[in-house]
Amino acid sequence: MHLNAFLMSTGHHEASWRLPESNPVANTDVEHYRELARTAERGKFDSIFFADSPVLFSDVGRRPAGSLEPTVLLTAIAAATERIGLIATASTTYNDPYNLARRFASVDHVSAGRAGWNVVTTAGPDAAKNFNLADQPAHAERYDRAAEFLEVAFKLWDSWQDDATLADKESGVWGDNDKVQPIEHVGRHFQVRGPLNLPRSPQGYPLIVQAGSSEDGKGLAARYAEAVFTAQQTLEDAQAFYADLKSRAAALGRDPDGLKILPGIVPVIGSTESEAQALERELDELIKPEYARQQLARTLRVQPEDLPFDQPLPADLPDEDEIEGAKSRYTLIVTLARRENLTVRQLIGRLGGGRGHRTFTGTPDQVADAIQSWFEADAADGFNIMPPVLPSGLVTFTDQVVPILQARGLFRTEYTGTTLRDHYGLPRPAGRTASLQEATA
Amino acid sequence: MHLNAFLMSTGHHEASWRLPESNPVANTDVEHYRELARTAERGKFDSIFFADSPVLFSDVGRRPAGSLEPTVLLTAIAAATERIGLIATASTTYNDPYNLARRFASVDHVSAGRAGWNVVTTAGPDAAKNFNLADQPAHAERYDRAAEFLEVAFKLWDSWQDDATLADKESGVWGDNDKVQPIEHVGRHFQVRGPLNLPRSPQGYPLIVQAGSSEDGKGLAARYAEAVFTAQQTLEDAQAFYADLKSRAAALGRDPDGLKILPGIVPVIGSTESEAQALERELDELIKPEYARQQLARTLRVQPEDLPFDQPLPADLPDEDEIEGAKSRYTLIVTLARRENLTVRQLIGRLGGGRGHRTFTGTPDQVADAIQSWFEADAADGFNIMPPVLPSGLVTFTDQVVPILQARGLFRTEYTGTTLRDHYGLPRPAGRTASLQEATA
Repeated sequence: MHLNAFLMSTGHHEASWRLPESNPVANTDVEHYRELARTAERGKFDSIFFADSPVLFSDVGRRPAGSLEPTVLLTAIAAATERIGLIATASTTYNDPYNLARRFASVDHVSAGRAGWNVVTTAGPDAAKNFNLADQPAHAERYDRAAEFLEVAFKLWDSWQDDATLADKESGVWGDNDKVQPIEHVGRHFQVRGPLNLPRSPQGYPLIVQAGSSEDGKGLAARYAEAVFTAQQTLEDAQAFYADLKSRAAALGRDPDGLKILPGIVPVIGSTESEAQALERELDELIKPEYARQQLARTLRVQPEDLPFDQPLPADLPDEDEIEGAKSRYTLIVTLARRENLTVRQLIGRLGGGRGHRTFTGTPDQVADAIQSWFEADAADGFNIMPPVLPSGLVTFTDQVVPILQARGLFRTEYTGTTLRDHYGLPRPAGRTASLQEATA
Repeated sequence: MHLNAFLMSTGHHEASWRLPESNPVANTDVEHYRELARTAERGKFDSIFFADSPVLFSDVGRRPAGSLEPTVLLTAIAAATERIGLIATASTTYNDPYNLARRFASVDHVSAGRAGWNVVTTAGPDAAKNFNLADQPAHAERYDRAAEFLEVAFKLWDSWQDDATLADKESGVWGDNDKVQPIEHVGRHFQVRGPLNLPRSPQGYPLIVQAGSSEDGKGLAARYAEAVFTAQQTLEDAQAFYADLKSRAAALGRDPDGLKILPGIVPVIGSTESEAQALERELDELIKPEYARQQLARTLRVQPEDLPFDQPLPADLPDEDEIEGAKSRYTLIVTLARRENLTVRQLIGRLGGGRGHRTFTGTPDQVADAIQSWFEADAADGFNIMPPVLPSGLVTFTDQVVPILQARGLFRTEYTGTTLRDHYGLPRPAGRTASLQEATA
């Protein structure tokens, strides 16, 4: 079983910053994040992860806003940790492949092989307006660019063979020019000559992670991703997603085991069930409903006044096809509300805790049971742990849930490798090593 | 007096990697750089600095090639140091202002106010080919974009007022929306809505550094730079450059003291003068002349066979006006060769040590004398120290030259501030603080 700690300022519950224990400016406090990473490493988590988007969501009144750029933040954390993997989100829509491929290779070098890249296409018109565009490129266009972006990145990471550096002081020849070659990529979105200006990194490529669950997103994941973060509300939905994605990968000729699926879960833990429920209530009561309704309205492409608090969602919402933004998130929210016949107020409570991810509320044993049941029912290869409150929710999970999973033989008690790929049991990409293979044949 | 340590793998002498003491793969070794930074901090240097270009110069045979992306590398170094400033080079031609402004603000946050940005426009067609272009934009066009890029970055860094974060847990209001505003920039090169997705950083802006000495480069420096790195071969040239740039800044209404000028020097230090000269000879003899001639030919836009080793440069070289690349470097090399009537072989020796920067060879006292004479003759506010061999050249300078400068009262014996701006005696930009000023008036 694989565990990723999804870190976000004071926690995933949007009101977590209001708790007495929380540091409300944790979002810019590198020491806060270093401490979280050390806790996750103590719990033998595979990795930590930061979401990201190159835009400020407009309402800074509501909750901690703005965040440190993830490759910088993870590099700052790398020095304070030794083993845990470091996964940063970066957009293929609003970056250049040359710069970004080099940045991830650099993080991989300085962390001795612990870098991962969560590949996102960045939904929404607001981000586009920070990058010379009036609106975002269409959904399919963003995914087309993402696929080519990845192809360029792979070529750049392979533009140095592993044994290109000779460092022969005697003859004065530092590198083998034959083993460092331009990539001469010419495509629809990119023309990139290469080679990269950096020797191949410890992992070859960073771990490739993907988190979009739209049709386009699943297609990209099946082809390229090695780990997938996903939001699934029920065991049945999670099983269906798991089976679907594994079979898509297999249909493309990939080993389905090479694609690890990690649903997000929000563990709300108490020493008794009622203590856990009390924590959940305390948090939900701190949500300011007018703020939450504004965000829900934006996601649903309606006005806040179209969403009376004590009524269900309006019947005439757009189809997913009409949504050019975060398609899978849209569908998840609408499906959840309709399936459980939730009012807007109830829906806001459910989303405030985990933004659509599944909440497991209970004692450490109950949370471990739920995790085990999903894991053993082919719904997950592991979990993306989203503590509602940080650091306390991660400390509790690490000290009280992880030992149960370890005792049951479900989770490692010690790291057995040094790189992020080692932790996920994934191979190092071989790269362009023809001459090596010839030499050893 | 201000001192910056310009760090580059095994040193600035192109043959330094061939010395027995050198780690030939230091270019990807973060621990090598951490150790250098700690040495410079022990010497109370203002800052360390990395050059950069998003392209691999093609000949990896010649010397250590490829380098860690500087904002990542400096972040990795930040954790191992406490006071020293951290200056990264980044290109305005091949980045987007939103991403880069955020990245520098992030480095400033995680380093508690020690970030600096060396603004470059990136000469040469090879870099362009990594970014969807067949050739580089024209020189003037690159500088026009650089100026607008900086204006956008300043607006983004000021898009959050310093007191925008309220963190009022009781009322549930995290930030003041009035103090976080879009920038709505619409210009020739960029349309950027903003605001930045990060609260204002400790220094407000990173220290702005510039290093181009062409007419366009000097114009950009006079308007925006707070520190300038420059290559000057003679005291008279350095004095003329210093006077010129200070008066350009004054003509634009700036305080000339707000612009610090740091010529690059290559200190070749021995316990006796002849020991220093022997080190210089040892290094020069390790240069492979055919490699060096290839690079010289590229810079001069001629073929290697046009440059016989034992003859002076050809008479019919292009004018600086015709050079769309690194104009000031071109002129410096041609001027040096003509003034001293150097053969190609001699010129290669001079350039191999410092790539056109001034070499001071001698005992620690002689090097300190030379530094003092330039400093006191209005040729410099400080120096960009470019050790020919690393780490040994930096250790020698720190342990043997810095104490002399300190004993003469020319250089600090302890840091008096905590930020990079503090070290250079430069103010923190006030930002958009109208409401603060009103409140305290």
